[in-house]
Amino acid sequence: MADNNGTTGTGAAGFSFELRKTDATGARLGRVETPHGGFDTPMFMPVGTRGTVKGLTPEDLKAIGAGIILSNTYHLYLRPGHTLVRDLGGLHKFMGWDRPILTDSGGFQVFSLGALRKIDEHGVSFSSHLDGSRHVLTPESAIEIQEALGADIIMNFDECTPYPASRQYTIDSMHLTHRWAARCKEAKKRPDQALFGIIQGGMFPDLRRESAEAIIEIGFDGYALGGLSVGEEKPLMHEMIASSAVHLPSERPRYLMGVGTPEDMVFAIESGIDMFDCVMPTRNARNGTLFTSRGKLVIKNARYERDERPLDESCLCYTCANFSRAYLRHLYMSGEILSARLNTLHNLHYYLSLMKEARKAIGEGSFDRFKKGFHEARRAVQA
Amino acid sequence: MADNNGTTGTGAAGFSFELRKTDATGARLGRVETPHGGFDTPMFMPVGTRGTVKGLTPEDLKAIGAGIILSNTYHLYLRPGHTLVRDLGGLHKFMGWDRPILTDSGGFQVFSLGALRKIDEHGVSFSSHLDGSRHVLTPESAIEIQEALGADIIMNFDECTPYPASRQYTIDSMHLTHRWAARCKEAKKRPDQALFGIIQGGMFPDLRRESAEAIIEIGFDGYALGGLSVGEEKPLMHEMIASSAVHLPSERPRYLMGVGTPEDMVFAIESGIDMFDCVMPTRNARNGTLFTSRGKLVIKNARYERDERPLDESCLCYTCANFSRAYLRHLYMSGEILSARLNTLHNLHYYLSLMKEARKAIGEGSFDRFKKGFHEARRAVQA
Repeated sequence: MADNNGTTGTGAAGFSFELRKTDATGARLGRVETPHGGFDTPMFMPVGTRGTVKGLTPEDLKAIGAGIILSNTYHLYLRPGHTLVRDLGGLHKFMGWDRPILTDSGGFQVFSLGALRKIDEHGVSFSSHLDGSRHVLTPESAIEIQEALGADIIMNFDECTPYPASRQYTIDSMHLTHRWAARCKEAKKRPDQALFGIIQGGMFPDLRRESAEAIIEIGFDGYALGGLSVGEEKPLMHEMIASSAVHLPSERPRYLMGVGTPEDMVFAIESGIDMFDCVMPTRNARNGTLFTSRGKLVIKNARYERDERPLDESCLCYTCANFSRAYLRHLYMSGEILSARLNTLHNLHYYLSLMKEARKAIGEGSFDRFKKGFHEARRAVQA
Repeated sequence: MADNNGTTGTGAAGFSFELRKTDATGARLGRVETPHGGFDTPMFMPVGTRGTVKGLTPEDLKAIGAGIILSNTYHLYLRPGHTLVRDLGGLHKFMGWDRPILTDSGGFQVFSLGALRKIDEHGVSFSSHLDGSRHVLTPESAIEIQEALGADIIMNFDECTPYPASRQYTIDSMHLTHRWAARCKEAKKRPDQALFGIIQGGMFPDLRRESAEAIIEIGFDGYALGGLSVGEEKPLMHEMIASSAVHLPSERPRYLMGVGTPEDMVFAIESGIDMFDCVMPTRNARNGTLFTSRGKLVIKNARYERDERPLDESCLCYTCANFSRAYLRHLYMSGEILSARLNTLHNLHYYLSLMKEARKAIGEGSFDRFKKGFHEARRAVQA
């Protein structure tokens, strides 16, 4: 159906996107509203794979400014099961998070299973990584599971084209994704969830364009770029982001899936991307790698053994306000739970603050200056 | 030296104990002051083995009413090292905790090493559980390490008599503890730390009395009962608590080391004990065993899979206010970090609330009624 945004969405109730400003660079400032409240864009979504952002409470997430989190359909489907989550009132209630949630479709995870899965027109059959039991995910069941979980934004079930892939494989895979996209939209029943389409097309700019046009033609509430950060070189990824984003309608939110580093995000914001998710800040935190305004810091390094400074002297997070590198190194070396928690708080605060600063710069029309400052702080350290 | 409490302490500056009330049952209400503030007794001390109460921040601990925490000399000596902690400003600053800390002497841990340690008059030689390196702890070095760590209350280095032990072994071990106690007091240099003596004597009431008299004769700022909860039957432990406590001076705090269950603590409070520590609430939390007003709850039990109730419907902790048993079971079954954190918060809240309720009851002269209600709630569930 057509709506007042000029393009065809799914008519999701309570969902809207307002594009507030486009900077001269192409960076966009926007606002997404959902049934569980809104958030400003560009926005990074912390990943809460199994119904929890590892180590953090909902209050922690609010304290660092998280406006929306992502959770994984594949994991919740296997454990505790989507019907259990539905019967207990949905994922928001289950995990105690009353702000927006986005769920992925499970597609990316089942494709990551490699030899354990098999694709055909119908869907993907796979073995659980937990107990080896056999399961099938289809466009219809992926939507059904996501409707049971009850996120505010749900995603199409697509094939994440691997890298490298031949042109012919990429074309066939893309067409499958398009057919599945139509089935996802058809399967959708809940009126209170927005459904995002996913653009594939591998590393071929013309296929990216073709995919964007096909997905837009079907019509979704937002558009995502899939199949990136799958092993390709950075310049190639950046080229694909830029060449894909230009084909997306300006009046819908644009989501770059699974990307990336702070540098990747700054690049993508300039290409007009509005939403991000990535396990990097949370996973790196648990591995003791911290993001700072001057680049990465590996906390186990012996040089921090007696270092009384915070991780980042310009950071305002709880971790930096209260604990030294020496203490954080001690916690990490001792395998303490608090290590993962304090590091995760810091890394997510860094990511969310980067988004906040980017939004401020776009609002002031100074994103270009912001970007230069961001890169200069890093070069100064490397020099 | 004699002081205004009538018995001989170490003259620690900034340390005092005020006995505010003794209930008809023998339960005591008191107040301990230290250079980092005071706390009411009876009080439970959460255990922060390696400079952190596993999974919790100092703010979490304050939110649940922790007035003092315990940290372990043995662990901090090996990693990150007591001189590092000292050079970085002491344990309070290192771990970001500005309220009182008590450190044990390391004795209990090195005795727990079994075949890895060797005792003689000088001290104990042992191999590190981390890397096998050889170390020696003596009364003098245990005090030196605790002075470097900088806790408000430090403990004598003693031999924790094993169970079972012959009368002769117990006598010899007790005499060694007495000689070491005198060396500890002699070695103590810092004027701003209180030093507690430890009573041994195994499971022999007359030796417990002899040990109490010998340790009191040397004179310390508080008195602890050691060598309990080491494998003996509950009735025997309770007999030893009761028969030891009566020999302790009323005007000094009394600390029962490493004990115990809620039932043990309620018994010990009635015997006139003021301070407790135990790994049980924190360790059990990580193993998914939760303390409630109606007894223990094992969260992995399948019966909680779809249970929407909080762990304890009468509990006011953050975990119970926000999360269902079903969600906590999911976190536990998934091995999520948040499981340990939320469970630890709940169990420590339970222990600290039990102390708070006990203090209230003693203040109102109704500890006997409190004790009966405590046991009746448990019997009602078991019946």
